[in-house]
Amino acid sequence: MYGAGDVRVETVPDPAIIEPADAIVRVTSACICGSDLWPYQQMEPTPDGRRMGHEFIGIVEDAGANVRTVKKGDLVVAPFAWSDGTCEFCRRGLQTSCLHGGFWGGELDGGQGEAVRVPQADGTLVKLPVAPDHALMPGLLTLSDVMGTGHHAALAAKAGPGKIVAVVGDGAVGLCGVIAARRLGAEQIILLGRHADRIALAREFGATDVVSERGDAAIERVLELTGSLGAHSVLECVGHGQSIETALRIARAGGAVGRVGVPQHDTLPAAQETFYKNVTIAGGPAPVRAYIEELMPDILEGRIQPGRVFDRATDLDGVPDGYRAMNDRQAIKVMVGF
Amino acid sequence: MYGAGDVRVETVPDPAIIEPADAIVRVTSACICGSDLWPYQQMEPTPDGRRMGHEFIGIVEDAGANVRTVKKGDLVVAPFAWSDGTCEFCRRGLQTSCLHGGFWGGELDGGQGEAVRVPQADGTLVKLPVAPDHALMPGLLTLSDVMGTGHHAALAAKAGPGKIVAVVGDGAVGLCGVIAARRLGAEQIILLGRHADRIALAREFGATDVVSERGDAAIERVLELTGSLGAHSVLECVGHGQSIETALRIARAGGAVGRVGVPQHDTLPAAQETFYKNVTIAGGPAPVRAYIEELMPDILEGRIQPGRVFDRATDLDGVPDGYRAMNDRQAIKVMVGF
Repeated sequence: MYGAGDVRVETVPDPAIIEPADAIVRVTSACICGSDLWPYQQMEPTPDGRRMGHEFIGIVEDAGANVRTVKKGDLVVAPFAWSDGTCEFCRRGLQTSCLHGGFWGGELDGGQGEAVRVPQADGTLVKLPVAPDHALMPGLLTLSDVMGTGHHAALAAKAGPGKIVAVVGDGAVGLCGVIAARRLGAEQIILLGRHADRIALAREFGATDVVSERGDAAIERVLELTGSLGAHSVLECVGHGQSIETALRIARAGGAVGRVGVPQHDTLPAAQETFYKNVTIAGGPAPVRAYIEELMPDILEGRIQPGRVFDRATDLDGVPDGYRAMNDRQAIKVMVGF
Repeated sequence: MYGAGDVRVETVPDPAIIEPADAIVRVTSACICGSDLWPYQQMEPTPDGRRMGHEFIGIVEDAGANVRTVKKGDLVVAPFAWSDGTCEFCRRGLQTSCLHGGFWGGELDGGQGEAVRVPQADGTLVKLPVAPDHALMPGLLTLSDVMGTGHHAALAAKAGPGKIVAVVGDGAVGLCGVIAARRLGAEQIILLGRHADRIALAREFGATDVVSERGDAAIERVLELTGSLGAHSVLECVGHGQSIETALRIARAGGAVGRVGVPQHDTLPAAQETFYKNVTIAGGPAPVRAYIEELMPDILEGRIQPGRVFDRATDLDGVPDGYRAMNDRQAIKVMVGF
């Protein structure tokens, strides 16, 4: 990406093993993320461009001398953050704060490309027990980000049996948040969203109510749906000011907000209202690596179908148009095949 | 209180039973709260004045027909919020959000007076198993607010065995937060404060380190004391902008901030830093009613000594000067005897 709206497909040098913990992964499936739309809308032009993509599945093509858990020929999924799996934070399941890890792009390859050098391959990659042409590949690809992120939001918001859960945002993460809330046993799931196709999918995923109002009207509507008390658990899956304010204000006293939408501002509103109501604010970049083993069986055995968030597929050359389609809300999420 | 700096002792009508759930309590001990200093510094002048005080112990003088748990002659402690003990929130231990409760003052009597009508007496009052002249009365009085509030901050910040806890603020609540963190098994307790007398007391209560810097220097110092990672648990016991920002920024990735200082602004800073670090922000007005039974034995048996936060005593006529002394930082907390 060279700037807002400027995505180009270019040839870069093939990656090669640099450190003995590295692996080289030949990408078979990747996708475009809602969070990629923030730079697509706002990025200052840069002459060098930025490698894009942080969600991918691929085949291990080469592995460094220290790599133990994956080998050449394995099909693997990569989380959107790489991590060593052994540091203080990884051991506690917070791989997105790994002391020796980081995010794709920058010095590293992006996932929206043919091959990626994966540092800390043992801590990062998870082997998939299927072939690259498996019908559930879209679902498995969501383990790299959106399904794990929706799950993280639900955990941070303390979703569970008997709870009323509100999901703010009907993007792929919000839709996966609905799946996660249902999977964790939520009793009522209110989706806040405005797009007919996404709402329809959310209802199939388990949403029991839909609120399409915004601002104060949305808050009022959620209160109506919750006996005037608000939701026990709120999943903030957008990240801009109004959605965060709505999320914080629809939480009931003693409730929790799990935020996974990348925040576009450095202040949080409703500091007093959330204080007086003892509302917990939690969440952040999801340590999806921690959730892959738990969620994978549910995908492989068909109990959850997060792969349905992909409503468009393209090849590498179609990536720029995929950004445009997602940005124009013509597609929920675009899968890239290689 | 008639306005900032204007506290008067006046005669008001004696309270009487209005509802069958009411009790009348003849106050024997009360105190001035750090949160009373916010209006003492900022309150607009008002011709009618505001009844003050929300922490008191007293003897039940009369009880309505429906009152079951206390009777005339009982010595009781009142939490800073009254509550029915039976609503959705009370049952879950969040009495400060009771659907039929509220706070002292306003239409009700204040605790800094000779007698108080207590609504929802069964849900609100807790009988004390001692006489009004018991030597531990100061400690028991802290059950009405500061000890329970410090405990709430520690719980919200997930303090516990092996944790590094930072306490922002050396007022009575911060000092009780040190007691609570120690009581819950914290391994290292860092007090952020600047007053020699309070620091000395905090060390006796269990603080292992003291940081007297402010702003970025305070953050840097806490990082030095925590292997560059920050504190697992941060207790925010002040409520103004800088202390909140410090609290949020000294939390380590995956840590938690328990805020109990009444927030003076309606936005929270460091929304992005806390997001990227998956820091949980929790807390609010402490449901001290939920903690009285748990904490009381530790006070009566001398395992914790929160009564030591009182370093000055006065009678009713001395209350205005007590406000002044606390506001001028000549006293940590002033006890009022009747």
